[in-house]
This record gives sequence, structure tokens and C-alpha cells, in this order.
Amino acid sequence: MIITVNIITLGKLKENYLRDGCSEYIKRLGAFCKLNIIELAPVPLPDKPSQSAISTALKKEAMLIEKKLTKGAYIFALCIEGRMATSEQFSKQINDISLSGRSTINFIIGSSYGLDPSIKCKSDMQFSMSQMTFTHQMARMMLLEQIYRAFMIGTNGKYHK
Amino acid sequence: MIITVNIITLGKLKENYLRDGCSEYIKRLGAFCKLNIIELAPVPLPDKPSQSAISTALKKEAMLIEKKLTKGAYIFALCIEGRMATSEQFSKQINDISLSGRSTINFIIGSSYGLDPSIKCKSDMQFSMSQMTFTHQMARMMLLEQIYRAFMIGTNGKYHK
Repeated sequence: MIITVNIITLGKLKENYLRDGCSEYIKRLGAFCKLNIIELAPVPLPDKPSQSAISTALKKEAMLIEKKLTKGAYIFALCIEGRMATSEQFSKQINDISLSGRSTINFIIGSSYGLDPSIKCKSDMQFSMSQMTFTHQMARMMLLEQIYRAFMIGTNGKYHK
Repeated sequence: MIITVNIITLGKLKENYLRDGCSEYIKRLGAFCKLNIIELAPVPLPDKPSQSAISTALKKEAMLIEKKLTKGAYIFALCIEGRMATSEQFSKQINDISLSGRSTINFIIGSSYGLDPSIKCKSDMQFSMSQMTFTHQMARMMLLEQIYRAFMIGTNGKYHK
């Protein structure tokens, strides 16, 4: 079974180096899964938005995200307070999802202000790569690297540390 | 007092996108500190090295690293089992080091097989950005991003998440 991995993100990558880095991992991941990057338009916010403006924007973004969630898919919502895992544990988890018969995995990366609680609640796992805050754009590259690493670990492939 | 930040690393960056990403953050960091990237030559190892070959290589690399450690500097040794911090805690720590009168901070990123225990013992803090394993080359970009973020948080600057 070829697994489908959908990365649902808000916004386009603005930096060339991140586009190039992501492209490299997207290319490599072609050997292991059907990968789709689904870029949604973030709701525009002013420079110093109020809490309620942020909350409203996240709710609107949540509606856009929900339309893209595949039925029956396993959903990872990326958020800093989520559970952390080692690369080996993450690899095992990807493998277990696949063995359980779920053929689609959705990863959701929110916008600068994160994700609406409703999306976090709908996810199978709230997942954190680090206690540190990275730009959500860099997080996309880090996530692609980890998904690639997960498949390489799962297939005993050689890959750098 | 202008703080000096030395990033001591093993090996050159092989990927253009990582070179470009690091350059971007090095440029930005010029506003906050004197930044030096010190690239040392990693000890070559075969494809599947024995544990003793790895250990010998790490010891040799440790000798190269030690020569570059500035006297009186605060030393962060990056290792996966190190202490984690939020970006805000990391920012406060950088600020506290500066306030304590230490004008130089050394960050050490090991090679694929990490760092010799002697280097970890010499450090003021064993520091981990993630439980996940990233390539040590990507870790360099992630670290530069976090140092930049630390200074931006410390100066109440606007910077993306």
C-alpha cells in the first residue's frame, strides 16, 4: 500500500532557500509515499493584532483546513505544546499507522499564530518537534526532513545525522 | 558590550539551500553580535564504522574543538540528550550570560556521530533543540535561527513565528 501524506499549511514559502530545501525532501519522499503540499491562504492580520482578531482569523483558517482533511486519515496537528517524540518513535508511529490500514496521513502546520483549538481537538495527535518556536515556514522543511528520516529509519536506509 | 558568538562546527555545509539559509541569519545577526562560524575538518570514517572507530574519531575531533574554545567563554554543547528550553528561556539565558560579564558564547555542533563526552563535560550547558535527530548541517541553520530569535525577543523586535 502506498501511503499518502498530505501536508496542509497556511501560506506560501517566501524564502528561496526554504523552497529549495523543501523541494529536495519532496523529491526524495517520492520513493516512499505520495506527498501533497496543500497551501491555503492565511487570513490577513494587521501588525499587532488583538487577541480576538487572532482568534477570528484562526477560526476562519480552521474552516479552510477542515475542507482539506481527508476522511479516515490520521491527523497530526503541529503545535508547540504537543507531544514530542524521538525520530525513531516517530518512524515507528508512521509505520504503525500504515499497518493499521490507514492509507492517508495529514500533517497540519498552522500560520504564525498557530492553530484554532477545534483543529487540535480533531487531530489524532498534537505533535511538537521542539519546545522552541521556529517560523512556521522553517517548520515545514524540518517536518519534511523528519518524515523522510522516518521512512529511512523504517526501511533501514542510510541517512545522515 | 558587543557579545561574540562562535559556532564551532564539524564540516562544511554541503547543500546550497542550507548555505543560503545560514547566510541570511548570519547577515541578520550582524546587528546584534560578532558572529564567527568556525568550521573544523571532521575525521573521516567509513560507511559503517565500528563503535571504537567512532569513539577514536570523536576524541580527535574533541582535540580540534578544544583548541578553538575561547577562555572564559560560556559553552553550549549541542546534544540530543541535553536540556531543552523554549525560545523565550533561551533568549533570557543569552541575556543573563551577557549581563554576567561573559562576552563570548561558544556553541559546539558535533559531526554525524555527535560529540566526545569530554567536550560535553567541559560545556556549561548541554543543550538540545529537539528530541528528534536532524542532520548536523540543518541543526546549524536551526541554531542560527534560534540565536537570532533570542536577540529579537531580548530587544522586543518583531519577528515571525
